[in-house]
Amino acid sequence: VFEAALLADNQRRASAVRARFEHARITALNLIGAPGAGKTALLVATILALSDRACTVIEGDQATDNDAKRIAATGCRVVQVNTGAGCHLDAEMIAGALGRLEPNDGSLLFVENVGNLVCPALFDLGEAAKVVVMSVTEGDDKPLKYPHVFRAASAMVLNKVDLVPHLEVDPAQLVANALRVNPALAVFSLSATRGLGLEPWCGWLRARARAAA
Amino acid sequence: VFEAALLADNQRRASAVRARFEHARITALNLIGAPGAGKTALLVATILALSDRACTVIEGDQATDNDAKRIAATGCRVVQVNTGAGCHLDAEMIAGALGRLEPNDGSLLFVENVGNLVCPALFDLGEAAKVVVMSVTEGDDKPLKYPHVFRAASAMVLNKVDLVPHLEVDPAQLVANALRVNPALAVFSLSATRGLGLEPWCGWLRARARAAA
Repeated sequence: VFEAALLADNQRRASAVRARFEHARITALNLIGAPGAGKTALLVATILALSDRACTVIEGDQATDNDAKRIAATGCRVVQVNTGAGCHLDAEMIAGALGRLEPNDGSLLFVENVGNLVCPALFDLGEAAKVVVMSVTEGDDKPLKYPHVFRAASAMVLNKVDLVPHLEVDPAQLVANALRVNPALAVFSLSATRGLGLEPWCGWLRARARAAA
Repeated sequence: VFEAALLADNQRRASAVRARFEHARITALNLIGAPGAGKTALLVATILALSDRACTVIEGDQATDNDAKRIAATGCRVVQVNTGAGCHLDAEMIAGALGRLEPNDGSLLFVENVGNLVCPALFDLGEAAKVVVMSVTEGDDKPLKYPHVFRAASAMVLNKVDLVPHLEVDPAQLVANALRVNPALAVFSLSATRGLGLEPWCGWLRARARAAA
């Protein structure tokens, strides 16, 4: 469900948020993925691996502050946004959360969107880049079936690769399908909970943060 | 994103679809789940297990007719609906698909919604019941984080239980969380691709179909 006026209004607010980020040299990443893709586990592992970098997090969920608690346990500052029946974060919610979060100049800001591979693709949050997070358990055809988010993203994190031996999924085909939808996609295959393959992903984040400085 | 007028319009159309189903003693089930929950695999296994019953399928996806092809390979009649940027099926799409599908009187009609645990919960399709399908890989906290769909559903299929030994998930806690959100939920734990645990689920479907006859 979407409307041109609503999207135009969001775009206006997102541009203001982006200008604010650029002024403060904050690198904001908008993480989008289905429920259970492992977005929060990825953030926990990433924050611990980037211990030399100032990070903050905005957590989006329909209900509960479970994810914010998991982030806070790492020592990272975090703000939870609950959307109720809403299916995605919007730029106004980010502007509101920033007032509470007060991220440092030059820091990395991770926004974890509501678990949904569909609607969040349409809403600019003022981020420097969208990152689509998917689990290998979701199957190799998903980039073709949900192309919008893969087209909108700059990077794909393919999570839970440790489970591949137990699945009928073909990770090479999955990556090929993602690149067919978006040839410019940076792809990182890893297991957040096992701590496998985190370094290339963290390297990409460091490079984005350096570029903003 | 939703609007009261849009939902009211959908509700009117859904009521007309429901009257049509009741008149023809068609039992329509609306399957809702995240991308990769295994909805299509569940339908393939279910159709084969219910070989003595007339079944038809409406497949919803943003793009591709991959899922319709998988259903058609079982010999079952199927119609694909592509929603483009849309994040859910609505009653108007179902009414349109029925014109092409022409389900038999007294049959079971499965509607596979767009892979999304959020928006489809809000849209009545005229179904007899909503069924939420989730994979154990999604984690035990999901019913609490996405409560709307679990509240709207009559049954939950917990799929891919064969993967539990490889995960840090607690299926008992997952089911307890689902029942906390909706104590009336019928719960079926199974593995569609391994053919495990299908019988109680098929029994529930047969009972629903008998009740409509």
